[in-house]
Formats: sequence, structure tokens, C-alpha cells
Amino acid sequence: MTIKSNTKFLIIGLGLMGGSYAKGLKKAGYYVSAISDNADSINYALKNNVIDKGADFVDEDLIKEADIIIFALYPQVFVNWIKNYGSLIKEGTIITDVTGIKGAVIYKINSMLKNNVEFIAAHPMAGREVYGVENSDENIFINANYIVVPTADNTQNAINICKDIGEILNFSKISELTPEKHDQMIAFLSQLTHCIAICLMTCNQAENLEDYTGDSFRDLTRIANINENMWSELFLLNKEQLLSMMDLFISDFDKLKNYIKTDNSNGIKDMMRLSTKRRKLFDKNI
Amino acid sequence: MTIKSNTKFLIIGLGLMGGSYAKGLKKAGYYVSAISDNADSINYALKNNVIDKGADFVDEDLIKEADIIIFALYPQVFVNWIKNYGSLIKEGTIITDVTGIKGAVIYKINSMLKNNVEFIAAHPMAGREVYGVENSDENIFINANYIVVPTADNTQNAINICKDIGEILNFSKISELTPEKHDQMIAFLSQLTHCIAICLMTCNQAENLEDYTGDSFRDLTRIANINENMWSELFLLNKEQLLSMMDLFISDFDKLKNYIKTDNSNGIKDMMRLSTKRRKLFDKNI
Repeated sequence: MTIKSNTKFLIIGLGLMGGSYAKGLKKAGYYVSAISDNADSINYALKNNVIDKGADFVDEDLIKEADIIIFALYPQVFVNWIKNYGSLIKEGTIITDVTGIKGAVIYKINSMLKNNVEFIAAHPMAGREVYGVENSDENIFINANYIVVPTADNTQNAINICKDIGEILNFSKISELTPEKHDQMIAFLSQLTHCIAICLMTCNQAENLEDYTGDSFRDLTRIANINENMWSELFLLNKEQLLSMMDLFISDFDKLKNYIKTDNSNGIKDMMRLSTKRRKLFDKNI
Repeated sequence: MTIKSNTKFLIIGLGLMGGSYAKGLKKAGYYVSAISDNADSINYALKNNVIDKGADFVDEDLIKEADIIIFALYPQVFVNWIKNYGSLIKEGTIITDVTGIKGAVIYKINSMLKNNVEFIAAHPMAGREVYGVENSDENIFINANYIVVPTADNTQNAINICKDIGEILNFSKISELTPEKHDQMIAFLSQLTHCIAICLMTCNQAENLEDYTGDSFRDLTRIANINENMWSELFLLNKEQLLSMMDLFISDFDKLKNYIKTDNSNGIKDMMRLSTKRRKLFDKNI
């Protein structure tokens, strides 16, 4: 473990994800402070012992005392924060994030940071369909994946620290991907699935579908309850990758449609066998 | 309750669904027998008190003593069974089923039945991604939907009996649909979702995706672990309805794709808002 027990964490942005990080780090015994422009979130977190200290303004004292800063903000808000306040971060600080896309963020952030402040990006593959620090829960990381996203400029020390955070939070699998590979992966595994769920919910005007549904439709549309501000931003910041994954999906969907249209039972069964075989890899080991 | 406490049930086909019906009916105190060509299933069910009597052949005694027969077979197997053995069913018997498509089955069955044997179709909207009586569980019906699918020829008495079965098994919502409306609904809620899950699993050749995934991809592909014999049959027996639902989905998917391509953030957000609003109707009241 590279992270020392007296390390001071500062979380900037205290919603579901920032709150869950705070709870997990506090549970492991670390000092955690937070900055959020939402005073209610800070008050709630202080009252419920989610954080040790907090401010609803850009508090220079909290920034100066922090050894590691975790940004849990929307992508553009994160970039703007660094632009406006990045100079307040003291030399030697490691900063990391939870942002859902990487290419459109990392290089901009790096170009604005002081020489001795190092940004090592991370993407916790966990979440819930509810918002706010009130719904935060450090258990969402158990059995989840955590992706560290270094560039060629990152030091091994910062990569190790970032992985340590994943371990402290009890993620089950910690991996490394380049920003480009990460964005490609996420376009498929996360953004495409959200596009599908949305369209399943919007395409059919029939009423009372909820009285006839089984669990399959419920499962495929759980994520159709979606934060439109965050996700539209994520989609557009990863546009090329997402569009190409949408096309990839459609090509197999058209293939299946054609098999059905031509009564090609063997073609359908072959796709189903491949699907069943591949799906087994995704079973959680719990 | 139209069904009397001394009613004798016979279940034909003793897999996951037949076994779950048997357990639910036995738990409610009814006499339940079963016929299956799988001797292991019958032996398991007798040994574990899932049924009172059983046979691994077409046992005329079990057929004659039954007041209500529940067919839990694949669609074509069901049709063939009635063709070969339907004449053994005694007059006055009510028969029902669990078949996933209706139009392609009901009229064929009705044309082959004796005058005084009445078929009232039903579709329990519940299931699991595992098979066999060993995995059967009467609790899969709790909080699930149950659809009774009468034709103009059905008596109110048979419809009531069929609804009673849904109540005995503890389904949370019991509805009625015509065969045509049922097949349309199921093409959308169940078959389309399975097509999507399959294509999500087959379209991307990238390796180690399981190390990076979040729960959304897992949720959307749970049903990609699929019984290819049953589902290819269901797809092809409901071909026209399924193809039209695939087109319906694709039209909204193309719309969303176009919004992304043209950076139409408001268009994306409008779809997400509609999606979020509609999804709330599908939350289970548990």
C-alpha cells in the first residue's frame, strides 16, 4: 500500500459518487474533507459523519491540507474547476477523478495543471439510479470493476496510489486502460446500453405495458431512469466512439432480423449459442 | 374462488415452469400429478414431494382423474401432444398452458379438442435463466404479472378458473388480453428484449470486457443466457409481430443516433426525460 494511514483526502463534488467515496475512505480510517457548492449536501455529510470537514465554497485551507484530491464532478464542470482554481492546489498533490469519459478530459486537465501536481484518472464502474450524498453507499463498490486510466506522462507512484484507492474502496477487479481504449470500452459497455434502454422506453406508445411485463423488460430498462444532464454530456464528449458502437450493435441486430425474416432457425440458434457462451463470463463471482 | 379445494391438477411437462406450478399448487393444498417424458424429473419431483403422483409416459389414469390439466411444454410439442393424445382427455376437463406465444397455438389446439374439453390460455410472465424441475421455485410468481388469453369461444367459468390459478400462485397482477394483443405485447416486452440482449453479446469481439463492465451491461444481458431451442421457436411463431417491434425500436434508436451525430443536446435530453418518466411506471411495488 503506497497510501499512508495519515493521508488527507479532499473530495470535490459531493453527490452519490463523491459521498460513496467519502464513506468508504472514512470507514477505512482516513481523514476526508469535501467541497461542494450544495450547502445542503455539506451539512448532511457533516451531520451524518460522512466527512470530517466540509465547505460550500472553494475553501483554500481544505485544498492546501489535502494530499489527494478526488474530483466527483460532471466532465465540463471538472475542467472548468481546474481552469478557475487549479492554481490553488499545492505542489505534490495527487488528483484523481470518477469521470465517465477520459479522452475529452485528461489532456485538457493535464495542460492546465502545475508541474508538480499529478492527475491520474480513474473510472469506478459502479452507480445507482438515485442521486445525492443522501443515497451514497460505500457498498456499491463491492464486486464492481475499477479502471485506472494513465497516460504516458503518469508516474508509477501516482498509478499505485490510484490503485490503492480502488483497493481501499473494496473494488473486486482493478485494471488499467489507456484513455482511448477506456473510451471505446465505455462506449460499448455503458453508453450503448443506456442508448438501448432509453429507446426501449420511448419507442412504444402502447399503454399499460407495466401490467403485462416480465422481468426481462424491467432489467433492460432499469437504467432508462437517467440523469439527462450528465448523460447527454457523456454521450457528446464520446460521440465518435459511441456512434461506432451503435453501428456495431445495429449490424448484428439486422443480421438477427434477417434470420427471423427468412425463417433461418439455425442462424438464430447459432447467435443464441454464442450469446449464452459469452454471457457466462459476466456472471459475478458471488 | 371457482376452483374447489378437492380439484385435481395434472401438469404435463415438468421443467422449471411446470415444477414451479406444481410447488405453488401443492403449497396451497391441492392434489398435483405430473407427466413428463423425462424420468429423472418425475423421480426428483416424487422424491422431493413436488407432486403427489407422476408418470414418465402418457398415463391414461392420471389424465382421466384430472379436473384441470396445465401444459408446460414448448409450443410445437404442446400442439403435437394434443394431436396425438388429446382424445384421452375426459369431457369436462379444463386445460390451460404457460406458452409464450398464443395466436400460433390457441386456434390449432381448439380445432383439435373434443367439444366438452375447454382450453383457456394463460401466460405467466415469470421465469429464470436456469432450467429443470430441480430449479423450480413457486416464489418466482410473487410480484409477477399473469395474463389470461381468452378467445370469443371461452366460457366465463373457464376464464374464472384460469384467473383462480393465477391467484393461487400469488401473481400480483392478473390481466386479460386477446391472443392477437398478447402476441403484440410479448413481441415488444419479451421477444424484442431477448433479441437486444443476444446482439449485445454477439456484436463485439473485444476480449476481457467482463473486467471493465458495470452493472448496466450485466443487466441488459442477463437474458442473453438463452435456451436456443425454445426461443428460436417462439421468435419464428410470432415472426410478423416481432419484426415490426424490431423496426419500431430501430426507428427510435436511429433518431437518438442522429441527435448524437448532430450534437443535438436538447433532442437527447428530451428522449431521456420521456424515458425517465415512463420507466417509473415499471418500478415494482415492493
